[in-house]
Amino acid sequence: MRTGTGLFISMEGPDFSGKSTQIQLLQQHLVRKGRDTIALREPGGTAIGERIRAIVLDNAHPEMDYLTEAMLYAAARAQMVAQLILPALAAGKTVVCDRFVDSSIAYQGGGRRLGEVVDRINAYAVRDCMPDVTFLLKIAPGAAECRRNARGNDRIENENSAYHEAVYEAFLALERKWPQRIVGIDGTRSVGEISAVIAARVDALFGEKDASL
Amino acid sequence: MRTGTGLFISMEGPDFSGKSTQIQLLQQHLVRKGRDTIALREPGGTAIGERIRAIVLDNAHPEMDYLTEAMLYAAARAQMVAQLILPALAAGKTVVCDRFVDSSIAYQGGGRRLGEVVDRINAYAVRDCMPDVTFLLKIAPGAAECRRNARGNDRIENENSAYHEAVYEAFLALERKWPQRIVGIDGTRSVGEISAVIAARVDALFGEKDASL
Repeated sequence: MRTGTGLFISMEGPDFSGKSTQIQLLQQHLVRKGRDTIALREPGGTAIGERIRAIVLDNAHPEMDYLTEAMLYAAARAQMVAQLILPALAAGKTVVCDRFVDSSIAYQGGGRRLGEVVDRINAYAVRDCMPDVTFLLKIAPGAAECRRNARGNDRIENENSAYHEAVYEAFLALERKWPQRIVGIDGTRSVGEISAVIAARVDALFGEKDASL
Repeated sequence: MRTGTGLFISMEGPDFSGKSTQIQLLQQHLVRKGRDTIALREPGGTAIGERIRAIVLDNAHPEMDYLTEAMLYAAARAQMVAQLILPALAAGKTVVCDRFVDSSIAYQGGGRRLGEVVDRINAYAVRDCMPDVTFLLKIAPGAAECRRNARGNDRIENENSAYHEAVYEAFLALERKWPQRIVGIDGTRSVGEISAVIAARVDALFGEKDASL
């Protein structure tokens, strides 16, 4: 279903791994390079997705079933792919996504221990529209904990440490499973070092894409 | 996953087929028989489900992707199964559900032409918790049309007639596929005749269940 010359980039990692900062820096880099870019966040990104996000992250719903949670994330993702990502890529734009399928596999498949069902539901949701490259900011749960307490937390962030350990392990398993797509980066490195690694990889991918035209 | 002696009954059919009336009459019948009963509606039934229902039926979202729609229904269903249906059945209660899996297969699989993906997503959502009996009130789209115009409609009810034809065909296909579970009833028969058919079948099922104890 994917057409066009745009690059699809996702940024992944545990909460408080520094994703937001790196996305901002990547956007600035893309602007400097003259690449027409849209940035999206998951869950959300669309009006429907933002309404779903409000439910799934609401601390008022401790009763939420894990499958319900996984399906709400997948529903928001399906909407974002159909409404925003596929049209943007078809128009030659570059898409930078704050979390995508890998987060569901890590948080619901790993953290909630739902396993393979999460992969399968999301395969329907994304319709073969997978990122060209995924940057995984790796920061162990203990280190993330220090950053965690600095701000108010939502329903997912408030889970216990065993949950966050399982999420992290699942991210590392994804990095081993998809070495071509996923670029793991030590999240404890300096902001500048990390952004340089990301920019270099993105530039290389644009070089390949432009050369193949 | 299902335990307990309760009966799980779903009521299905096109919009305006008379489901609500029959559910009320069935509840009265169950009360007379001394059966502890809970009635649920889909999507909704839980606090989370009602929030999902508000999104999925909102006329303000013509941009909703069909897969998103299917996943939102499945998410609400997963929550209802986990939070209400399984515990109620385990406690020996009878559950009467206004729409269940068959509606998703008819409306999203048939009406939206998503096909098998809807069956598979919902298989995850219900976790083997299927109704003991499903009453399908059959009323052809043309006949339902006359009832339709009598009240305000939501996003799904407002779909065109080809959509409602496809939904109806999918319901009939389900009746052929699951003859043991699905009891098709001519929805143009009188309210009293229909309720008598339903009550007789429910009583027979209770007879079998009680005899097997």
